[in-house]
Amino acid sequence: MKFQYHLEKKEKNTKARLGSFTYQGKTYETPMFMPVGTQATVKTLSPEEIKEMGAGIILSNTYHLWLRPGEEIVNQAGGLHRFMNYDGPILTDSGGYQVFSLAKNKKKDITEEGVFFKSHIDGKKLFLTPELSIAIQNKLDSDIAMSFDECPPARADYDYLKRSVERTLRWAKRGKDVHQNQNQMLFGIVQGGPYKDLREYSAKETVKLDFDGYSVGGVANDHESKEDMYKAIDYSVPFLPEDKLRYLMGIGEPIDLIEGVIRGIDLFDCVSPTRLARHGHALTKFGKINLKNAQYKKDFTPISEHCDCYACQHYTKAYIRHLITAEETFGSRLLSIHNIRFLVHLMEEIRSAIKNDNLLSFREEFIQNYYGEHDEQK
Amino acid sequence: MKFQYHLEKKEKNTKARLGSFTYQGKTYETPMFMPVGTQATVKTLSPEEIKEMGAGIILSNTYHLWLRPGEEIVNQAGGLHRFMNYDGPILTDSGGYQVFSLAKNKKKDITEEGVFFKSHIDGKKLFLTPELSIAIQNKLDSDIAMSFDECPPARADYDYLKRSVERTLRWAKRGKDVHQNQNQMLFGIVQGGPYKDLREYSAKETVKLDFDGYSVGGVANDHESKEDMYKAIDYSVPFLPEDKLRYLMGIGEPIDLIEGVIRGIDLFDCVSPTRLARHGHALTKFGKINLKNAQYKKDFTPISEHCDCYACQHYTKAYIRHLITAEETFGSRLLSIHNIRFLVHLMEEIRSAIKNDNLLSFREEFIQNYYGEHDEQK
Repeated sequence: MKFQYHLEKKEKNTKARLGSFTYQGKTYETPMFMPVGTQATVKTLSPEEIKEMGAGIILSNTYHLWLRPGEEIVNQAGGLHRFMNYDGPILTDSGGYQVFSLAKNKKKDITEEGVFFKSHIDGKKLFLTPELSIAIQNKLDSDIAMSFDECPPARADYDYLKRSVERTLRWAKRGKDVHQNQNQMLFGIVQGGPYKDLREYSAKETVKLDFDGYSVGGVANDHESKEDMYKAIDYSVPFLPEDKLRYLMGIGEPIDLIEGVIRGIDLFDCVSPTRLARHGHALTKFGKINLKNAQYKKDFTPISEHCDCYACQHYTKAYIRHLITAEETFGSRLLSIHNIRFLVHLMEEIRSAIKNDNLLSFREEFIQNYYGEHDEQK
Repeated sequence: MKFQYHLEKKEKNTKARLGSFTYQGKTYETPMFMPVGTQATVKTLSPEEIKEMGAGIILSNTYHLWLRPGEEIVNQAGGLHRFMNYDGPILTDSGGYQVFSLAKNKKKDITEEGVFFKSHIDGKKLFLTPELSIAIQNKLDSDIAMSFDECPPARADYDYLKRSVERTLRWAKRGKDVHQNQNQMLFGIVQGGPYKDLREYSAKETVKLDFDGYSVGGVANDHESKEDMYKAIDYSVPFLPEDKLRYLMGIGEPIDLIEGVIRGIDLFDCVSPTRLARHGHALTKFGKINLKNAQYKKDFTPISEHCDCYACQHYTKAYIRHLITAEETFGSRLLSIHNIRFLVHLMEEIRSAIKNDNLLSFREEFIQNYYGEHDEQK
């Protein structure tokens, strides 16, 4: 279902912006963090839990759903919302990132037509094109579809990135030409690495194609530096229209959410809160803690005294540590709830700082707490 | 917290009995199925979900909690209820069954004093005695503790079982003598295999020790036949007092719940509903179905049209099949909810049949549905 972004307010000292949109009668505020439900489920959680923690849009992965259970089955089920019982907004990515990352150790072949690669499940040969990505997303019936872009490797050189930007533009146009789902928005993706001229060119040309929203792509790469990430945003955002959503793909580290918002980003997604949970890690105001550490064995306090999530309201670190150690999935469920709530709450604080025009001092305080030295990590 | 069992009604044509007890202001009816939370968590589920599906007493395993996180930590957390956030009644077993089953492939040595065996986690040498089992359970602070019995191997001969019955009686007395937790009930266990005289002797002598409730033990063995199980119950129950709960340990197959109730049993526990869930199996009125089967790929109906559980209210077989195939834990969570609800609901039907004095015809109908041939397993 399409929805309209409204720019509510710009922060005084940064490019941060407060916005909103209404979906199925409910109003959501941006900037927003979007939890990831890779395989039509946010790992370990129910849709009710996701909504209870204040999340809005969730993301699901086209590549994974294409392979399993297949977009036809999701379509016959009545689309992704009905299939997974989520009545909030859903965004699907294009599959491009997974094709380039999951298949990275296998032979893949990028042609102008599309990408040949092997399935990470059974090694089957597959071919994904801009047209096919859009056709799959049309059938999944998400609310926001993403253009199929070429995700350049980390530290790609200027010439590679220049060619990649051109190809991504051609692919964006091909995808837009076949996009048919009238209830689905389509976002374009800006590429160009850390290069100012490439980002400007990519942004301007992508905007000319007139998408429903825009994404800053090519930053969710482990090898890329934060500096390059910030450049990518800084060089792209000025050329994006004010009345459309701006989405920084695959980024979820707390400080990056703040830095992204300061640079004009509205939407973020990342698997990190649920992935950290499976490894026994909890996000807190005073940094990330590892509940597997022996110091939490007899710690009968919640992960955070300040947190209003279900895990912190009812369970102690000692109990969650026990569950994680004993490999009980209720442990990663509790930590997933906490970690997602932490990021959702961080966005609430960020929005409040935008309203009060004190986002920069909020950032200072956050850094001091999160990265500062503490007697105890609580 | 201790509670009093009230016998409400006996069924006309069988030994089945309807009973009730009040715990923390809430009244629970028996016969009852108790879900198992081995490691202080009913696998994949929250306490709220367990209560929502109408479960009452849950069971937790002394052996597992002794090894991890240790009874001292649970005690310091304020006991098992507070540790795991469950305010319904909790029963702990004695650890005896695990010592005899989990350690079965490792060297174990049964002496009059207790059992030497190796931890299934790290192979560490351990020694469990009746006194230690009770001391651990006292610290776990469950509502019902079980006596430490000797679990005889499958198909043990008469002489072995006779000696085992005698030892179990001596161990029961030793445990009772050291039982100190005034808020905790202690149950005795009747042994004796399928032998009438041994069961009678074991039951009478155990009752002489005056426990708060009684269990029919030695039946939860894969190799034991149903016939022997029914004999074990039939030969034990007549000698148990009417005003105390009777518990058949480790049994959870639907038909066995019915047969057990018919023979005068009030309480059952089994890991089967959550274990079946992890393997993609769902219990239905028309038999057990395996959701991994290809026939459910495009089955957009719930597991059961008649079921009122959360999984059946919101999700299709196709979606749950997808989750199980994709190894998403939300799949086993949904199936755990369904399977436990199935057994809890079966007990509701059994109680209703006791009220209406038609338990035998209920059994006939159940068998016809569950084991009969059907065009489709729905």
